[in-house]
Amino acid sequence: MEESRSKAYEDRMACSVHLDEAETGVVIIDQRELPNRQVYRTLHTDQELYDAIKTLAVRGAPAIGICAGYGMYVLSLSAKATESEAFLEEMRRCGDYLVSSRPTAVNLSWAVKRMLGVIERSPDEPVDAIRRKLHDESIAIHDEDIAMCTRISEYGLTLVKPGDGILTHCNAGPLATSKYGTSIGPVMLGKERGIDFKVFADETRPLLQGARLTSYELAKAGVDVTLICDNMASQVMKNGWVQACFVGCDRIAANGDFANKIGTSGVAILAKHYGIPFYTLGPLSTIDMDCPTGADIRIEERNPDEIRTMWYKEPMALPEVSCYNPAFDVTDHELVTGIVTDRGIIYPPFKENLAKLFE
Amino acid sequence: MEESRSKAYEDRMACSVHLDEAETGVVIIDQRELPNRQVYRTLHTDQELYDAIKTLAVRGAPAIGICAGYGMYVLSLSAKATESEAFLEEMRRCGDYLVSSRPTAVNLSWAVKRMLGVIERSPDEPVDAIRRKLHDESIAIHDEDIAMCTRISEYGLTLVKPGDGILTHCNAGPLATSKYGTSIGPVMLGKERGIDFKVFADETRPLLQGARLTSYELAKAGVDVTLICDNMASQVMKNGWVQACFVGCDRIAANGDFANKIGTSGVAILAKHYGIPFYTLGPLSTIDMDCPTGADIRIEERNPDEIRTMWYKEPMALPEVSCYNPAFDVTDHELVTGIVTDRGIIYPPFKENLAKLFE
Repeated sequence: MEESRSKAYEDRMACSVHLDEAETGVVIIDQRELPNRQVYRTLHTDQELYDAIKTLAVRGAPAIGICAGYGMYVLSLSAKATESEAFLEEMRRCGDYLVSSRPTAVNLSWAVKRMLGVIERSPDEPVDAIRRKLHDESIAIHDEDIAMCTRISEYGLTLVKPGDGILTHCNAGPLATSKYGTSIGPVMLGKERGIDFKVFADETRPLLQGARLTSYELAKAGVDVTLICDNMASQVMKNGWVQACFVGCDRIAANGDFANKIGTSGVAILAKHYGIPFYTLGPLSTIDMDCPTGADIRIEERNPDEIRTMWYKEPMALPEVSCYNPAFDVTDHELVTGIVTDRGIIYPPFKENLAKLFE
Repeated sequence: MEESRSKAYEDRMACSVHLDEAETGVVIIDQRELPNRQVYRTLHTDQELYDAIKTLAVRGAPAIGICAGYGMYVLSLSAKATESEAFLEEMRRCGDYLVSSRPTAVNLSWAVKRMLGVIERSPDEPVDAIRRKLHDESIAIHDEDIAMCTRISEYGLTLVKPGDGILTHCNAGPLATSKYGTSIGPVMLGKERGIDFKVFADETRPLLQGARLTSYELAKAGVDVTLICDNMASQVMKNGWVQACFVGCDRIAANGDFANKIGTSGVAILAKHYGIPFYTLGPLSTIDMDCPTGADIRIEERNPDEIRTMWYKEPMALPEVSCYNPAFDVTDHELVTGIVTDRGIIYPPFKENLAKLFE
């Protein structure tokens, strides 16, 4: 028991978000500083937690959820209320404040709600006892995410052979999730077992998560990674270097259409053209059975200056040039070979097979 | 006659490369400074011409050819030789020096050879008379390019309707060629005639010619242009906003496969998926009947730092991350709807129809 607890502890401590040793602060690696500087920050106050989420120092849906869970526990330590009812009120205010840092981040509000539920289910208990439950719940959120990523990685690993070339887009690795990640989970798990792959990482304009984060974390893990511009994926596939595409997903509709970082649908079309299997990897919670098809997913547009000026020494286009900057695109289910979840791999016909999964 | 000469003069003076009014220097717009600064330079010496071509102040195959033609004329003015034979020797040394600035630029060596041919065909003539012929030849090179771009633009214009959305990749407009350009020639010619299109310009990583040059010259011409990241083309097509793709070409094989800026083949595959016609536009001289298929075209790889660090305030990937940076890709002829040349539009079967053209 001692040994397995220690393994779980080590797994958590190796993640991009975890509780510090004193269990009074949330440690994060500041993703804004990557790849040039590895800066760890320990967050103690509501303001520090809010800023870290708002400014994308912590990003990636699962990582945000884990951060919010730990954040609520850490904030409970400095809550002044001595009675459970007042304590709940105080923690609700903390939760509302955290959620307001990124109101559309589903995992953020989900984790806050789950932590508040612990308090709601503990009326008349001593506040310190509730604090202990909050501690355990935040650990549980993290451990569950690690287990989920591990299962996704295990399933994904069955789809590729040692030495295969894998193309990925954007970032759904350890930084954004926990432990192995989702889309690059099979590669990370493989690495741990001595199975090597050759990964091609799309740089993923305009925010460059593929360059800044994916190529960074794969290189640090000793994985053979080659960074390419998004428009080079066709040539890499034509060269015969890619045996599978693994991408993440933000939302999967009931028919298997799915939203992910802009450019994902283009990768899927290229993969189909070259006869390369294309998989999306994500937890079951990403599947939204209330969303019938991809056409029902609204695509958010972002600031055009991300294309014209961001990152650069000087602007790359005139200010009067319009830009279209969709954050996501929707990949048609007909382009998808399989959906890799923590409950197994779903194959076409997706509508029927997804429905069965939720029966 | 006076009027038409004046029209030709104005056409030349409006180009990105032309002879200055005194006819003693080559005026260029420095493409390295775009889009932030419109800097015109007048080149007089061999060193200035060499540097302008070498450092990409002048770029685009036709623009380089025009610059080399004018350059050879301008250098003839300061040649010290008083006899035609010694003059030819002196000019050959100038030509060799210019060609060494970009040894693989076909139009550069072609224009230099053409200018030297004028001298070779004028033995025993007074040097000043040969200078006059060189002047006229350099004008002819430019006028022929304008006529060629105009014909390509005319043919291209027959392929689209007013209001159509046109997606383009990289830059083959006025800056890189003369007058209207090739790939965006139909748009520029249309604009002159009051026909408006909606252009989507791929930014074209890593050198960003689409952002820095194409969106710049279209915006300056008053064309409705929207800049996108390369990975957004799929979404733009899915939105139904694109009725045709127009791209340039560096080399067309005898079977219709063609090499162009990296990312072109991806655009062609997306266009096919969405049922959008895809055309490449270029002069007949781009077709290399000695090159059987695209597989015979060697793809040059460029410096990985163009992906990792170029343009940026700080690096976007670790120095130990490998990059694959092919300058071009080859688009399969099966993805091409038509090849728009100055001699008409070639349709499949390309092998047969290209052969007929050269009979």
